[in-house]
Parts: sequence; C-alpha cells; structure tokens
Amino acid sequence: MSIRILVTGGTFDKEYDELTGRLFFQDTHLPEMLRRGRCRLDVAIDTVMMIDSLDLDAAGRAEIVGRCRAATERCLVVTHGTDTMVETARALAEAGLEGKTVVLTGAMVPYAFGSSDGLFNLGSALSFVQVLPPGVYVAMNGQHFAWDKVRKNRETGVFEPA
Amino acid sequence: MSIRILVTGGTFDKEYDELTGRLFFQDTHLPEMLRRGRCRLDVAIDTVMMIDSLDLDAAGRAEIVGRCRAATERCLVVTHGTDTMVETARALAEAGLEGKTVVLTGAMVPYAFGSSDGLFNLGSALSFVQVLPPGVYVAMNGQHFAWDKVRKNRETGVFEPA
Amino acid sequence: MSIRILVTGGTFDKEYDELTGRLFFQDTHLPEMLRRGRCRLDVAIDTVMMIDSLDLDAAGRAEIVGRCRAATERCLVVTHGTDTMVETARALAEAGLEGKTVVLTGAMVPYAFGSSDGLFNLGSALSFVQVLPPGVYVAMNGQHFAWDKVRKNRETGVFEPA
Amino acid sequence: MSIRILVTGGTFDKEYDELTGRLFFQDTHLPEMLRRGRCRLDVAIDTVMMIDSLDLDAAGRAEIVGRCRAATERCLVVTHGTDTMVETARALAEAGLEGKTVVLTGAMVPYAFGSSDGLFNLGSALSFVQVLPPGVYVAMNGQHFAWDKVRKNRETGVFEPA
Repeated sequence: MSIRILVTGGTFDKEYDELTGRLFFQDTHLPEMLRRGRCRLDVAIDTVMMIDSLDLDAAGRAEIVGRCRAATERCLVVTHGTDTMVETARALAEAGLEGKTVVLTGAMVPYAFGSSDGLFNLGSALSFVQVLPPGVYVAMNGQHFAWDKVRKNRETGVFEPA
Repeated sequence: MSIRILVTGGTFDKEYDELTGRLFFQDTHLPEMLRRGRCRLDVAIDTVMMIDSLDLDAAGRAEIVGRCRAATERCLVVTHGTDTMVETARALAEAGLEGKTVVLTGAMVPYAFGSSDGLFNLGSALSFVQVLPPGVYVAMNGQHFAWDKVRKNRETGVFEPA
Repeated sequence: MSIRILVTGGTFDKEYDELTGRLFFQDTHLPEMLRRGRCRLDVAIDTVMMIDSLDLDAAGRAEIVGRCRAATERCLVVTHGTDTMVETARALAEAGLEGKTVVLTGAMVPYAFGSSDGLFNLGSALSFVQVLPPGVYVAMNGQHFAWDKVRKNRETGVFEPA
Repeated sequence: MSIRILVTGGTFDKEYDELTGRLFFQDTHLPEMLRRGRCRLDVAIDTVMMIDSLDLDAAGRAEIVGRCRAATERCLVVTHGTDTMVETARALAEAGLEGKTVVLTGAMVPYAFGSSDGLFNLGSALSFVQVLPPGVYVAMNGQHFAWDKVRKNRETGVFEPA
C-alpha cells in the first residue's frame, strides 16, 4: 500500500534560528522521522509549503486540495499546523476526494525539541490512514476525528469532539 | 474508548546500567512515552513482566494470555520483545479472545536511546488497536500484520509477510 | 571547592509554549543539566532572573553584580543570553570582585532542543571556573576569553577575539 | 591552541546493535559531539582503537602512550572507558610526556543514550586541557584529578580522590 505525505509546515517542522533566536522553517524533518521510526511503508514525501498554518490562506488551501486530488495514492497524510488544521480538513472534505483517505496530523511541540509529540503523531497518522474508510480525518495525540466532528480548543490547545 | 497496555519488557524498556555497562530492565517507560505523545486516549497500563522475550516461556505466555482474557477493555496493546513476538501473538490467537482486538508492538532500539523507534511504534499500535476488527495483530515500524501472516527475519531484523 | 551558578535566563533556558507557539521562560533547566552531567561538584544554583539578555537593563545588571559580590563562593558561573553577555562581563569586571573567578556562559540553542550546545558549554564553564585565576571570563563553545578580549559577532553569531 | 583527541572507545562510543540487542562499537561519536557543542577550538580527532577498556592490554596501552608521544600538540584529550582509565593515566604519566597536558575522560552512559553525560564531560575535558599545567589528569563529571590522586569506586561507579 502506497502512502503520500504532503508536508505543509506547522509546529512539526519549526526550527530554532541561532542567529535571531526565533523559530523558523527550513527543510522538513519528515525523512529523518521516518528513518527514526524505521518506517517500512511505501511512503512518498511531497513538500507543498512550509508555513505557519495561521498564515495559510484560501489559495494555499486550494493548493493542498489540488495536490491531494492529483495524488495517485489512495492514502494521504497531510502534516499541518494545529491552529487551522480543522479548516483545511473541511476544505478537503468539501472537495470530494472520492475513494481517498486523508489524515491530517501535526504536533504540539516542534520535532526539533526533545519533548516533541511529533514522532508519536506521525506513527499514529500513518496507521490510521491505512485502515480508516475513505474520508477526511484529524489524528492528534492518539485520537482520530472525522473532519466535521472536531475543533481545537484554543484555551487548552487540545483537539476535542465538536 | 478504553485501551489497556500490557507491558512485558522487550527492547522497548531496556535501560543502561551505569555500574555494569549492561542493558537491563527497571521500570517501564510507557507512562513517560504517553506523556511525551500527549496521548489523550483513556489508557490503563499493566506491567505483567519485564523480561527479554527470549526468556519468555510457556508459563509466561500463559500469564499474558490470562491477563488479556481478564481485561475488561476491548482494545489491548501488548509491548513485547521482537524475538518471540510472533509466538506470543499465536498463543493469544489460539486462546480465542472473542471480541477483542490485540496489537503487539515493540522496538528495534530501546526508548532510552535517542534514536529509538519506540514512540513511533507506540503511536502506531494505539491507533491500529482502535480501528482494526477483533483479532490478534503485530504492529511494527508503520506496518500491521495478522498474527499468522508475519515472521521476524532474523538476518535483517525486520518483520515481513509470511 | 564550592561553585555558585547564577541563572539569568538566556537561550539556555528557553522553553516552547504549546499554546502560543512562542519561546518563553519557565523554570531553569540547570538542575536537570547537572543531573545529566552527573556533576559531582559542590554546586549551588541561584535563579537571579529569567530573561532574554536583550531585555537586561542597568538595574538588572546591577542585581547580577550584587549577587556575585554577595556570594561567599570564590568560583561563580553566570548563565546568560549571548546578545549582551559581554556587557554584563564588563559590568562584573568593573565592579572589582576581588579574588573571585567569574565565568559567563550560555547557549546558541535552547537546552530543550535536542541539538543544544548547552550541556557542552556548562561542562566547559564549570571546568574553567575551577582553574582560571581570579577575573571575569566568557566561556562559549570550548573557548574562553578574558572579559575585555571578546565580542559577539552579530552576523555569524559566534564569539571571537576582540 | 591546537588540541588532539585520541579516541580509544569506552562507554562514550557504545552503540546499540539492532540485530543482536547488544552494545557494540562502530564509529566514534566525537565529530558529532563537537558539532553539537558548536566547538570552535582547533581540534584533530584520532581514532586509536574502539574497545571496552576492560579489554585493553599492555600493548594497547603502549599504543596510546606512543600516540600521545608522537602528537605534535601540547594539549591532548584521551576518551577512554572508565574501568581502567586510571591505569592508562598511570602509563601515560610514567612515560614522561614532557610539556604535555593530557586529560582522560569518558562517560557513565553512552552518548547514543538520551541521558548521556558524554557531552558534559567532553566540554569539561576540552576546557581543563587548555588551562591545566603539563601533566596527566582524569576529568569526569565536572571534577579533575591528578593521575595519582584518583580511583574509580567499583561499587558506586564514580571517581573519587585516592
């Protein structure tokens, strides 16, 4: 079974800039994470963009939808910032990607931090995408939600049923 | 949905003994791993034993089967050494745990090592167990196998279809 | 030989805020770092402040000088943001802390990041402070400089002879 | 100031063998450790051997002495297993390496483990070697000892005055 990972940035891939002391985006950590997970799936990685999901606009979202539509794989994982993950999930659901299972995932803490939940979430998303029926889902911190049954609680930072 | 994790030891939980320079078992790392994964599932952890799976005998296997039978949860994850994981999977399957989904998982490298695949595998196993139909499975490095369709390749160290 | 570590914040101790996605200060990582280094020195830790060194003003600097003066130990390590470390070193030197060896150190990358130089620098600073003659020094990335023979190169981010 | 690091193996450099589940030696981690420490010293690395110091015999020790004698640098750091570090220190002292400062260091936990003291000890050894007068020293966990004033306590695993 082939899986395509579409990278869009988000907390997952934030790096520390030694010169400015700020977090920024460089290359995605996905290849390193798959190596560390000794992942034995047939996975292709596609870097669509590297941005904070708060900066994602309609054109960016259309680009993600287009890439998912164009993908020949039936199983798609989208790494995404948590702030607007649910909005992108909705855009993907409304696009009607027939026969495809799309799982959006992200991280509460950048992978570059020792304490990141990124590897756990990646293992989770890659598993859900193989067994869930076609549709659009959000997978975070062990849980999975249908795209229209979830919201991010801004106060606690966690995803919860909606 | 409630999940019970039955800890049996294995590479997952090996520690470095500073005095002897050997690997040994102390406490399980599962609670720390769930914290790091910011796991939001309803999970109970049960330390059944802390051993190398090469040292697991029929009595030990019967104990694991008994614990799985006794568990009130429908979803069970068993952390296990990779060397005899498939044998324990068979024992569980032959025990006929009706209505239960049991996923065995482990690690190629101890969690205490920076390069461990443990967190990835744990995220994966906790996801598969929620959506796979009742039965016994092995989940390693992104893949999942029915208990009777997998073997560990001793030369390469990886799990493959059988 | 007793050593006092005066914590002032800086990159060393920056944490990731899961809610805002920004770096911030919480508690110092020094105790954890000393445990990890299995440090066997007689060390006392004093959190003077937890700030970005760009936010350090004259009053803050006076506070650091006062703490160094008040300390009964002859060996003092000051953890400090790199941006104005040299200015604080000058303030300490001009204060004339007779008989005391003061070593300022910091990190290019927060300790909470897997790739941090913090542990290396801490081991270095704690060693220099034991053997250098009284005076004020900056110790970064294996090197040590007298307070008036160093500057931070803003373009490369590294400390160099001045 | 030029420093030569002579690598002999020891806990520092132990790796986990995924196939056998045992610790073994592969390549040294020193270059990676220097990168992580963003070390700005002029350092040359020389892998003399990669062994457990319990397996180090007289010929091996003579080889280390020979390399230290042949080195053109005045500052030498020797990474070494802790079990017989003091014996090698004695061999180096008895060889009479005039004008040279030699610091032996090691680790209680392999660098490949997340909890290793290796980076702390390396930062420490590289600092002591620059400022201590000619002679042979052991530097571990923040402390330094003249070669004839230290022993490893086999029960606690720590180096202490002798």
